Amino acid sequence: MSKPSIPKGTRDFLPIEMERRNYIFDTIKEVFRKFGFVQIETPAMENISTLMGKYGEEGDKLLFRILNSGNFFDGVSSEKNEIVDIKQLTLKIAEKGLRYDLTVPFARFVVQHRDKITFPFRRFQIQPVWRADRPQKGRYREFYQCDADIVGADSLINEVELIEMLDEVFRKFGIRVAIKLNNRKILAGIAELIDEVDRITDITVAIDKLDKIGLDNVNTELINKGIAAEKVELLQPILLLEGSNSEKLARLKDVLSDSKVGLKGIEEIEKVFTYLNDYNANAEIELDLTLARGLNYYTGAIIEVKALDTAIGSISGGGRYDNLTGIFGLEGVSGVGVSFGADRIYDVLEALNLFPDKSAATTKVLFVAFDSKGIDFALPIVRRLRQVGIACELYSEAAKIKKQMQYANDKQIPYVAIIGDEEIKANSVMLKYMVDGSQRLVSIDEIVEKLSK
Amino acid sequence: MSKPSIPKGTRDFLPIEMERRNYIFDTIKEVFRKFGFVQIETPAMENISTLMGKYGEEGDKLLFRILNSGNFFDGVSSEKNEIVDIKQLTLKIAEKGLRYDLTVPFARFVVQHRDKITFPFRRFQIQPVWRADRPQKGRYREFYQCDADIVGADSLINEVELIEMLDEVFRKFGIRVAIKLNNRKILAGIAELIDEVDRITDITVAIDKLDKIGLDNVNTELINKGIAAEKVELLQPILLLEGSNSEKLARLKDVLSDSKVGLKGIEEIEKVFTYLNDYNANAEIELDLTLARGLNYYTGAIIEVKALDTAIGSISGGGRYDNLTGIFGLEGVSGVGVSFGADRIYDVLEALNLFPDKSAATTKVLFVAFDSKGIDFALPIVRRLRQVGIACELYSEAAKIKKQMQYANDKQIPYVAIIGDEEIKANSVMLKYMVDGSQRLVSIDEIVEKLSK
Repeated sequence: MSKPSIPKGTRDFLPIEMERRNYIFDTIKEVFRKFGFVQIETPAMENISTLMGKYGEEGDKLLFRILNSGNFFDGVSSEKNEIVDIKQLTLKIAEKGLRYDLTVPFARFVVQHRDKITFPFRRFQIQPVWRADRPQKGRYREFYQCDADIVGADSLINEVELIEMLDEVFRKFGIRVAIKLNNRKILAGIAELIDEVDRITDITVAIDKLDKIGLDNVNTELINKGIAAEKVELLQPILLLEGSNSEKLARLKDVLSDSKVGLKGIEEIEKVFTYLNDYNANAEIELDLTLARGLNYYTGAIIEVKALDTAIGSISGGGRYDNLTGIFGLEGVSGVGVSFGADRIYDVLEALNLFPDKSAATTKVLFVAFDSKGIDFALPIVRRLRQVGIACELYSEAAKIKKQMQYANDKQIPYVAIIGDEEIKANSVMLKYMVDGSQRLVSIDEIVEKLSK
Repeated sequence: MSKPSIPKGTRDFLPIEMERRNYIFDTIKEVFRKFGFVQIETPAMENISTLMGKYGEEGDKLLFRILNSGNFFDGVSSEKNEIVDIKQLTLKIAEKGLRYDLTVPFARFVVQHRDKITFPFRRFQIQPVWRADRPQKGRYREFYQCDADIVGADSLINEVELIEMLDEVFRKFGIRVAIKLNNRKILAGIAELIDEVDRITDITVAIDKLDKIGLDNVNTELINKGIAAEKVELLQPILLLEGSNSEKLARLKDVLSDSKVGLKGIEEIEKVFTYLNDYNANAEIELDLTLARGLNYYTGAIIEVKALDTAIGSISGGGRYDNLTGIFGLEGVSGVGVSFGADRIYDVLEALNLFPDKSAATTKVLFVAFDSKGIDFALPIVRRLRQVGIACELYSEAAKIKKQMQYANDKQIPYVAIIGDEEIKANSVMLKYMVDGSQRLVSIDEIVEKLSK
């Protein structure tokens, strides 16, 4: 029989990986809670109508759909022409889909439970999402998202707090980052400047690629999208903006002086910078007009975090969306949020060797016996250690000592308590410190005391 | 627009529910780790071939299947007779399925990663599973399982440790329980006794219902399954066994004296009881021959935990299975494990009012300002509190004080720091303790000191 496998794009997590993932999630959760965020969870499956049309046409194709149970063809005519209309058929035989992100289920949650929620609602959510994307290095079909959002509050203080939260998380991880800020209203002002307000999406999508494909290619893309060459020319001073944040903003105020929305965006971002003046940030916080994050639903702040010491790039991001819950019939609820890229953060921590130096073992001591007499002798000691909260194990079979020691080694258990006839007679164990190989006979009281530290 | 909804049998978890669920999982995880178990995770989706045929015909029907992406009808002939063979068609258009339990994915994991695993492998796993069951009170289509297993070890010490682990978890929860033990070999001995070894499944399934449907109905069911009345008569002394564990075992040894496998089962369970003699259990630990847990894969110990003070019944269970990984081609790996019923435990803790008395709020203090000057004044204090690890929030808009106080109330935030002109002038805040309504002016240093406690 060949080895079993799992679907492509999915992963098993071994104990060492789980420990590291838990470190990431625990660190983020601790900060979330310190900022007053509370946790929710939503089901893996949503009604397909909740998901459809929320992620663009491309997104609809990437939804994993769940086949109706039972006779899923009930109600589907078996006439050939209906069978081949895959799109229609799919909607009939698969009425549920797997969560594609946490944002749309959260919007659904807010509308559905609005009577039970206290606004402004600060929620966090850490759950897997599924996308039928082509798997490739660093891109999976199942991955965790880790989101914090504040809904029902317009104040820019919320943007400021999220930025401070990002800063604190990455300070805890020891990852040097740049937090890049932009504002969708500034992008709208730029579109106004060249008199192409209807093309704001095309323009921002192209600008968003500046980092990846370079200025020339962005210009080509804009022209290919039908923006006149002289208008693309007008954009150049903006694309090439340099200097400090305040220099850039001053320059920008000048360029966009005729755009009301543009000036509003500048005012917002200036206010955020002002609030952050007194904050002792670890990260570089900088205005970046090329930041658009390809997403259409941001209406104000756009935020992105880049790791400075690796080529991995964006590891978190977010922004403000003024009408998150409108799609589900609840208007006028503004939200702002950030999302931590757990897989990317894992890769950065690994690449920079920043994971805390702790073994996969939570076990502190393994009891190793020569025979069943030794096991009988060990059992009450094991119980006593656990009673005082010490993680320990008893090798349950009288296997060869070498095998038992190998087990301790593999699991990186720091202490081994060896029990032979001599030890039993002395009511003691031979306690070996695996790190340097030193060992000595210790009484039961002593072992409890020593390992309690 | 009507309120959005979620698929039947699934649930959203609100912050208060999440906090309680986290309490359950964190408590269990802490005990798992103390006993040397390490965590793994497997993907939500498995290849359908991994899942099919592992849960009986009924289980196959309850699998949630995921539609292949793209043109899932490729390779399916559109001839009418093929379309209507739902079973065949399903296998072709849906090659993945959602995890039905954690045991089969774990068996697959052990075989797939055997070169990276240290045996005996003590793993725990806490993840949702999905079953297309008819939803009803307490039964969901998505629910968490919480499993700990030891594979690659035959010693009964492992059974003993799992029982102690169950005992410790429920002691921590404050739930009084009975831990019931049986052994599949004893059930086999009973089948031998009435010369119906091939009917052991029918017999154990019927016996398993004794608690629920009573002796008479069990007897009727046995007769209906084709067991002769005189054989059912032979079973009566076993079904009616009473007394202490050792009395029952002594009696049983007598009844099963001709069954080698039966005596082996008795010997195993006696050994477990002997090991537990010196253990100071909180739970009642008792032999229960009616315990079969309907599952066919147990080969030795069978374990079940019942809550004593509610009618909710079984809240955890487990047992030994001698050939878990055999289905995936790796023979000779014995395992023993337990599973905690998180939803049932939640219901018991709620029914008995045993959840720790802690509010849903992790936030310790809310800063309430009359105007933007107050917000500006509060921001550095909030930063300072968070720096020393105190969870706090700043109400980000200068809303009516009443609305802000309501927010603190709803979120059960114990302290509110009110900031008006007077407070700013005095470089202080009016700190109100929401529990008794008392308030006094405190300096910034004082608030840090007071809330650090």
